Amino acid sequence: MIKNFNKAVDLINKSKSLLITSHTRPDGDAVGCMKAFYDTATLLGKKAQPLLLSPLAKWYEFIFQKPIPVLGNDVKIEDLQNGSFGSFDLIVIVDTNSYVQLTEFDKWLKVSKIPVLVIDHHLTGDGLGTVEVVDSTAAATGEIIFDLLKFAKWEITPDIAQALYVAIATDTGWFRFDNTDSRVMRNASSLIEFGASPTTIYRKLYQNYSTSRLKLLGVMLNNLEFHRNGQIAIQHIMRSDFDATGATGSDTEEFVNECQRVSIVKCAALFVELKDGGFRCSLRSDGSVDVQQIASELGGGGHKLASGVNLKGNLAEVKKLILDRFEQQLSSKD
Amino acid sequence: MIKNFNKAVDLINKSKSLLITSHTRPDGDAVGCMKAFYDTATLLGKKAQPLLLSPLAKWYEFIFQKPIPVLGNDVKIEDLQNGSFGSFDLIVIVDTNSYVQLTEFDKWLKVSKIPVLVIDHHLTGDGLGTVEVVDSTAAATGEIIFDLLKFAKWEITPDIAQALYVAIATDTGWFRFDNTDSRVMRNASSLIEFGASPTTIYRKLYQNYSTSRLKLLGVMLNNLEFHRNGQIAIQHIMRSDFDATGATGSDTEEFVNECQRVSIVKCAALFVELKDGGFRCSLRSDGSVDVQQIASELGGGGHKLASGVNLKGNLAEVKKLILDRFEQQLSSKD
Repeated sequence: MIKNFNKAVDLINKSKSLLITSHTRPDGDAVGCMKAFYDTATLLGKKAQPLLLSPLAKWYEFIFQKPIPVLGNDVKIEDLQNGSFGSFDLIVIVDTNSYVQLTEFDKWLKVSKIPVLVIDHHLTGDGLGTVEVVDSTAAATGEIIFDLLKFAKWEITPDIAQALYVAIATDTGWFRFDNTDSRVMRNASSLIEFGASPTTIYRKLYQNYSTSRLKLLGVMLNNLEFHRNGQIAIQHIMRSDFDATGATGSDTEEFVNECQRVSIVKCAALFVELKDGGFRCSLRSDGSVDVQQIASELGGGGHKLASGVNLKGNLAEVKKLILDRFEQQLSSKD
Repeated sequence: MIKNFNKAVDLINKSKSLLITSHTRPDGDAVGCMKAFYDTATLLGKKAQPLLLSPLAKWYEFIFQKPIPVLGNDVKIEDLQNGSFGSFDLIVIVDTNSYVQLTEFDKWLKVSKIPVLVIDHHLTGDGLGTVEVVDSTAAATGEIIFDLLKFAKWEITPDIAQALYVAIATDTGWFRFDNTDSRVMRNASSLIEFGASPTTIYRKLYQNYSTSRLKLLGVMLNNLEFHRNGQIAIQHIMRSDFDATGATGSDTEEFVNECQRVSIVKCAALFVELKDGGFRCSLRSDGSVDVQQIASELGGGGHKLASGVNLKGNLAEVKKLILDRFEQQLSSKD
């Protein structure tokens, strides 16, 4: 690790103009790490350009304080290829090492000759980096960047501390997922000493609902159905619910997780009616059910514990599709 | 502090039979500290008897693993006075130093000649202790007990670590209140090393809803009204909602805090219809409104940010009572 830290520091020290990016659908770890790296490069007197590969969720916007260009919206892949977006001598990719997570950007990455620094905590990787700092024992990529900054003795400002705190706090589900180890809490402790404010960060991340969004949550929970004595939770939101509450599609983010408060729930589905017909179905599992299998079978994807799929049909039909598969998997384990 | 730690250790070392208690309506800090002290005394080869001054909320029951006697239910104050509950040579009081928080127990405390050890993090106190270990800079009493155990070099088992983790985690609102400082996170880190499991503890504390309780939450959020452009949140639960969902009165605990997710909410009220008529009203404020003042005026009590009061009248009447006072206080600041 020290060897790779040394190589990473060399690469950064030699560079003058950095392009900083991360995976599509950026989460708190991605954005926090991008911001920490952006500030660090700037403090070191370098030019730095962050680039998002898809739009940022509203609740992460405070991290960068200003809008970051999004590939596909503000920047075209041609702008990268022809250099009209700027010329760079180092590409920094944080929180991923996989082509599939770099939609569109990978087209440029595959042909560009610019050195690439990858900093990531995921086990799997496509070897995208000229130098790769990968630590799969880290709960968040933010932990690795924190280690790197301390190793290089680079300044850690309150803004950098906040960004890294967001990275670590969100990737551990605010210190509740099972990757919350003593290192996570020790890093959180140090980052507070460097100026991160847990209360401020918590408020910005989680206490940012509009009145419409909380009303929509009420509507969803009021539609809640339990099956198999509470092992299966099924929820839905119709277009008319958006109209009645004034909420929008992105307001449903994380809603499917609400039923995890019930101790006996093993799997859950949320059906959100789409504008053009059919339903977006989000699936969650505590491990008893493989929701990736269900989603792939129906044309969607994701992970074993969290997946999603778009379904055609009316509410009764799409519910039956999923409920049958939940029941089947749970019964096979009885 | 070291001086008081020394005195506390002396007192404990000299004792053979400890009675361990805390304040009424025990919270996670109270129960966690009682359990940590109980285990420590037992490991030191002493007799130890925990005593609760009012019943434990269901979600704290896992901490002690077995039911703890409750004064007024399982034990009468006479049993303490005549010695039929046991004879003790040390009373340990954790997480309070105030007579008013020791309802009934104070009657015995005032006449007993047994030495008292107080361990507390609150600023105010009645000087109940023969020896007092008070550190008002600690976010939780659990932090002081952790310091004491390390000071005395007494064993910290995984069970003790779990109990102290509960104490610290609950008193900081799972690391989100503004008492979450670097010491809190450093202690959490060490307690994980001593065997506490954050995920297990989180699940037991917060993911313990029954299906009925989550349905009741849905009903409440569906009844949600906002006033003054979202600055005031008003919610209610009727007896018929309990009947329809199968939930019970204690299931509404913490429900009034749900609307804190909305960033612009300054104050909130939850009205829960009582069996014998009228409503229990819980009040919350972000500091913009003094809810203690509202509650006291109507015959209730509490703190500036969290209070409660029982009100006579129908729903429209009790809502108007509170809403008028919210509006008045907010308008006076415009």
